Amino acid sequence: MTAKWGVGLEKKIFLKCRECGREYPPVRLYACEDCFGPLEVVYDLDSLSLRRSSFEGKPKNLWRYFELLPINDKANIVNLEAGYTILHKSSRLAEMLGLKNLYIKDDTVNPTYSFKDRPTSVAVSKALEFGVQAVGCASTGNLACATAAHAAKAGLPCYVFVPSDIEMNKIVQISVYGARIVAIKGTYDDANTLAAQACETYGWALVNINMRPYYVEGSKTLAFEVCEQLNWEPPDHVIVPTASGALLCAIAKGFEELHRLGLISRNDVRISSAQPAGCAPIVSAFKAGSLEVTPIEHPETIAKSLAIGDPADGVYALKTIRESGGVGEDATDEEISEGVQLLAKTEGVFAEPAGGVVIAALKKMVEQGDIQPDERVVCYITGNGLKTPEAVSEILAQPTEIEPRMDSLKNIIDLKGGEG
Amino acid sequence: MTAKWGVGLEKKIFLKCRECGREYPPVRLYACEDCFGPLEVVYDLDSLSLRRSSFEGKPKNLWRYFELLPINDKANIVNLEAGYTILHKSSRLAEMLGLKNLYIKDDTVNPTYSFKDRPTSVAVSKALEFGVQAVGCASTGNLACATAAHAAKAGLPCYVFVPSDIEMNKIVQISVYGARIVAIKGTYDDANTLAAQACETYGWALVNINMRPYYVEGSKTLAFEVCEQLNWEPPDHVIVPTASGALLCAIAKGFEELHRLGLISRNDVRISSAQPAGCAPIVSAFKAGSLEVTPIEHPETIAKSLAIGDPADGVYALKTIRESGGVGEDATDEEISEGVQLLAKTEGVFAEPAGGVVIAALKKMVEQGDIQPDERVVCYITGNGLKTPEAVSEILAQPTEIEPRMDSLKNIIDLKGGEG
Repeated sequence: MTAKWGVGLEKKIFLKCRECGREYPPVRLYACEDCFGPLEVVYDLDSLSLRRSSFEGKPKNLWRYFELLPINDKANIVNLEAGYTILHKSSRLAEMLGLKNLYIKDDTVNPTYSFKDRPTSVAVSKALEFGVQAVGCASTGNLACATAAHAAKAGLPCYVFVPSDIEMNKIVQISVYGARIVAIKGTYDDANTLAAQACETYGWALVNINMRPYYVEGSKTLAFEVCEQLNWEPPDHVIVPTASGALLCAIAKGFEELHRLGLISRNDVRISSAQPAGCAPIVSAFKAGSLEVTPIEHPETIAKSLAIGDPADGVYALKTIRESGGVGEDATDEEISEGVQLLAKTEGVFAEPAGGVVIAALKKMVEQGDIQPDERVVCYITGNGLKTPEAVSEILAQPTEIEPRMDSLKNIIDLKGGEG
Repeated sequence: MTAKWGVGLEKKIFLKCRECGREYPPVRLYACEDCFGPLEVVYDLDSLSLRRSSFEGKPKNLWRYFELLPINDKANIVNLEAGYTILHKSSRLAEMLGLKNLYIKDDTVNPTYSFKDRPTSVAVSKALEFGVQAVGCASTGNLACATAAHAAKAGLPCYVFVPSDIEMNKIVQISVYGARIVAIKGTYDDANTLAAQACETYGWALVNINMRPYYVEGSKTLAFEVCEQLNWEPPDHVIVPTASGALLCAIAKGFEELHRLGLISRNDVRISSAQPAGCAPIVSAFKAGSLEVTPIEHPETIAKSLAIGDPADGVYALKTIRESGGVGEDATDEEISEGVQLLAKTEGVFAEPAGGVVIAALKKMVEQGDIQPDERVVCYITGNGLKTPEAVSEILAQPTEIEPRMDSLKNIIDLKGGEG
């Protein structure tokens, strides 16, 4: 059993198959050799003597939890200062919805403006630790920007696999960091498949493919931070925007690790999932009381970052929601736009549509009695709205044009009741 | 003299005319009644017993410097957690330019993604303190988003004055926060003039007009933070993107206040200005050895956030540059684009064109010997590149499209030398 920790490594971690339980040392492996199940990083938590005070004075980014991340040598850390983002006490939105204790975990202010900077920072660091010569990913959105930026900081070549029909603005954002875009004449699935083959052929570390076990570890810091920011008193309920299900499972893992370390006194956070109605395989399964997740063949939603029809971690996410006492809720495109606007108007946070999904789901959960008024609720807002203005442009009022004269201004202001 | 501090206020501040020196209590006044000169907030620094240790454990946003900001009652603070942004040690860019100690102060990760969140947070807080019923600004860019977001958080109506021909995406970003857009059939100057009249008529607090003395105080936190993040050892040299000159003067004021408080041991930071070549009235005056700043009638630059042809604080900025031993440098559109790309490729930070101006100016200053290799240099990067992809799109390489097969991939990868 000793070998599983890896030889000569300071940090005691190993990989474990989530399906059959087979254990492996922490090598470059991402699927079980026996059953092809996904691998997960396990830490020797008993050997860590972490106290709440251990984190005082630590850097204000996700690397403050170094002991709980799968990197052995701090010299390998690729740090753009992702993480330790703001937890807004959201009193105005809370009041509007009839809640008493609502928080927004604002991951729109990460270095490339989404939570993807967290797993990417870990995956690119691990790639350096493995001595890999190039990194990359298959993605058309937030992940591509995060990977390209961290590769730039690391000084590593970066290959981003995308379908060739993606928007010009995305190409700009990815390539300004110096990443090489491999534009595939085909679908996103084609890009993904070719990317997986390229890992084998060139030995590249593609963060969401062959680095996946390490990659997902970055996301659990969203659980760590919320607990620490609430003075180590875990919230009662969290709402997680859900695509592949990996983020939701990572957050659950985060709470569990803190509990096993004794840093939080209870592990009873209700973990709920929010999905767009046009692509809600996990939420639909929850509502139907099913144990299976039926893939959606043609996702149709303005929340493109959640449009994964066949979620890799869907069954695990479903189990986590049920066992934690959480619920699942979905939101139509119209509700998503309204959710984005409601959050911006009340709290000054402009989220991507995935954030609108969360706020719309929150609203429904409160209305349906799934959330009690005095529950301490945290909404995870995982990406910013700047890249997707079209998601709200249709429902916003058009500005009234006036001549540059006071009488024209008075006409439109006084009609409104003359605020001020 | 006692009255100037204001009656019954806990914090001892007053307003002082920068032209004639006349003093006023801290009221709603923004120009000297005698000479129409600009007013500046002065603090009774001698009465403050601030030590370096006073800031330990303070919140990680600009309000950690509450004693040095012009708000009396903390209950009035409108806080979206602007400030205390990352100071990146930029080793890769430094090496490329032949520097040893280069830092990027990354204000792209503020709540609305530019440094404007700092002055706006202060101005909207002060508006609440004055009991004002509505806020706003005249702006077409970053300031409008910052004001709208802070007004949302404060629950105040917000009026944003813009020329009616601004881009749809900007309208979306401003109005998603619930701000009312007043679209003027005319130029930006027309919008500005009408906004100033509206302040008088409706009693609104327009952050960059009648709240200006309080507003600019927010920006000096960019000096405070850099010193604190460098363990209270001030940098040798800072490079500031310059439009109206207010930011540069505020940063100088920040260093001076820290020095007078004894929090830094020297006040000899060289303060240099970077302007786009198509609108460089301050830098041109510097280079010409002039004491006057000649307005630019038709600014032409991709760095639109710096395109102020007649800078209100131009003469003060010029004086500050000279007295501090700084220099001025400009950058063409091409150099700006290259600067944006260089920063993104080496450090993983995607800046708006104003950031490209700073990096291009830095490069020139090093090449010309204006900056010595061992100087400790801080570049202020004040806005993000997401809103202005067009600034770099032309110079970026187009992605090569391939069929979704390994042989197609090999063709393009192996040609390049097979990295990895």
